[in-house]
Amino acid sequence: MIECPIPISDYPTITLAHGGGGSLMHQLIDRLFATAFHHPLLRTSEDSAVFEVEPGRMAMTTDSYVVRPLFFPGGDIGSLAVNGTVNDLLMVGARPLYLSLGLILEEGLPMETLWQVVQSLAATARRAGVAIITGDTKVVDRGKGDGVYINTAGVGRLVHQRIMGPQQLVAGDRILLTGDIGRHGMAIMAVREGLSFETAIESDCAPLVGPVMELLEAGIEMHSMRDLTRGGLATALVEHAKTSGRTLEIEEASVPVTPPVRGACEMLGLDPLYVANEGRMIAFVPADQEAEALRILRRHEVSAESCCIGRVTDEMRSRVRLISQIGSPRLLDFLSGEQLPRIC
Amino acid sequence: MIECPIPISDYPTITLAHGGGGSLMHQLIDRLFATAFHHPLLRTSEDSAVFEVEPGRMAMTTDSYVVRPLFFPGGDIGSLAVNGTVNDLLMVGARPLYLSLGLILEEGLPMETLWQVVQSLAATARRAGVAIITGDTKVVDRGKGDGVYINTAGVGRLVHQRIMGPQQLVAGDRILLTGDIGRHGMAIMAVREGLSFETAIESDCAPLVGPVMELLEAGIEMHSMRDLTRGGLATALVEHAKTSGRTLEIEEASVPVTPPVRGACEMLGLDPLYVANEGRMIAFVPADQEAEALRILRRHEVSAESCCIGRVTDEMRSRVRLISQIGSPRLLDFLSGEQLPRIC
Repeated sequence: MIECPIPISDYPTITLAHGGGGSLMHQLIDRLFATAFHHPLLRTSEDSAVFEVEPGRMAMTTDSYVVRPLFFPGGDIGSLAVNGTVNDLLMVGARPLYLSLGLILEEGLPMETLWQVVQSLAATARRAGVAIITGDTKVVDRGKGDGVYINTAGVGRLVHQRIMGPQQLVAGDRILLTGDIGRHGMAIMAVREGLSFETAIESDCAPLVGPVMELLEAGIEMHSMRDLTRGGLATALVEHAKTSGRTLEIEEASVPVTPPVRGACEMLGLDPLYVANEGRMIAFVPADQEAEALRILRRHEVSAESCCIGRVTDEMRSRVRLISQIGSPRLLDFLSGEQLPRIC
Repeated sequence: MIECPIPISDYPTITLAHGGGGSLMHQLIDRLFATAFHHPLLRTSEDSAVFEVEPGRMAMTTDSYVVRPLFFPGGDIGSLAVNGTVNDLLMVGARPLYLSLGLILEEGLPMETLWQVVQSLAATARRAGVAIITGDTKVVDRGKGDGVYINTAGVGRLVHQRIMGPQQLVAGDRILLTGDIGRHGMAIMAVREGLSFETAIESDCAPLVGPVMELLEAGIEMHSMRDLTRGGLATALVEHAKTSGRTLEIEEASVPVTPPVRGACEMLGLDPLYVANEGRMIAFVPADQEAEALRILRRHEVSAESCCIGRVTDEMRSRVRLISQIGSPRLLDFLSGEQLPRIC
């Protein structure tokens, strides 16, 4: 842990002046951000970062992060803000390259907390192989924020020539899932509700760069990919069914849920299928590439427990049919209410 | 004014469920955002937008907007969020192309207010010639936000082959200003403080696409450009002096300030040189191109009152010398405190 480059004794907390364009804002930029995010393209004296591109297709995405609490087992708002945006770029088959960073700080935020978040952003960006090249800081008055809100936008370069997305599903496609579900949401809820388990639930928050890039480089003809954030696995499946007009059939028993996550869900009356993840995805692949895709996925730590959970059928009805070991199939739909507020 | 596509009677205000990934969030996306921001690249069923690029240099920038109040004479948080980011791209000589949009909504925000902001975002983007191609919405609990916070990130394409920025200043450069200063900040403060003047102060909030693109296409060798947002004209000048290591000499009498802005500043004890603008910029140009640059700038409504306010001297000291009609020169520096919180 590097010491905070702004002496805590001088400026223990963030003040409105840190967002005012004057000398305190310049100190924040020059000492805190320039140190943590050091990169040749990050030029803090300019309004925009400039980079070279080759001809081809690029992707752009954005997400804001308002998670509460800021720190939780397995991650924090900083790692979330990098991994979430990186994973969104990956889902269209783009190699993530550059991120922008927008911070909305609440007056009174401890400088030490900001420094921890900034270090986490920087470390996670290094791990994911992306650079934070431009940023902005605003400060809002006490009681008009909640410590730190973060926005990251990202750009990346498509590494394939194909069209991907829910419209591309065809009958017979296999649905692969990269690991157990529900960990991110339940890690947060366990902290908020003060639940404790024999084994602490850790968020799955992680960048999916490794497995996705290898799948694409190996020529796996993925028809669609989706990370399982807000709304969880069920929502991602329903979105695919509605957009493609097809029926997806899921074997409930094949969807991994760890005992602590299942226990926490039962205690709180939640369905793990709808709980948010931050390092899990589904991929729709042709049946004859299922084995090779699984082999590739399992080589990477973040997707070591990948498995096939179902398939796209030739029934042209926009629905997700969950087949349990006992009883009749259940149809999944969007939740109407809010299961877990401010999970990301 | 188009009617809000979500019946106000059904959903009068934003609830936490509007950010939860379920059916209410999909309704917001499909009805409100897809309607307002309609564009072939905006595909709400995908995690990222995809676009083609030609080889060359691109720019990326980001800004969050936390202005209070949300609506003010001459603009609102929506027009600000588009113009601010568009202008940041222009300042490095890039043609603005695409924006991302991150909304942080407070529980209880009237749906009608959101619709007004969304329409303003869309109309301003059309005027500036950019497309909003990807977005994200989060909802925070009541008392943890302030109606709406907006982040926009933008990408654009550099339309010149040169290196620009404060490092490029040379002795003799003329400093051009595109109009009167202080209007944005004082328009906001007048609303907040309940000040009224014979002529209402309107924000100068506007996109600078027209004049900047024409300057670059005409081959004006701009050494640097800067929009005069937080910290105003004085801060932009000081940043240029510090980064270039040179002395800038400014004729105070040549800096236009309207009587209502001057009056409001005097009443509130503010210096108009430090008050934020949202449609003004300075440009550093070689002395022999001053006349042509001014001719071009004056052809555009947003910069019709452009004038030369000073020059870069050959004194190698990082300072800004303000020369008044009477008395001795005054040196400008960054403000340390906060003059006007939450102005953008």
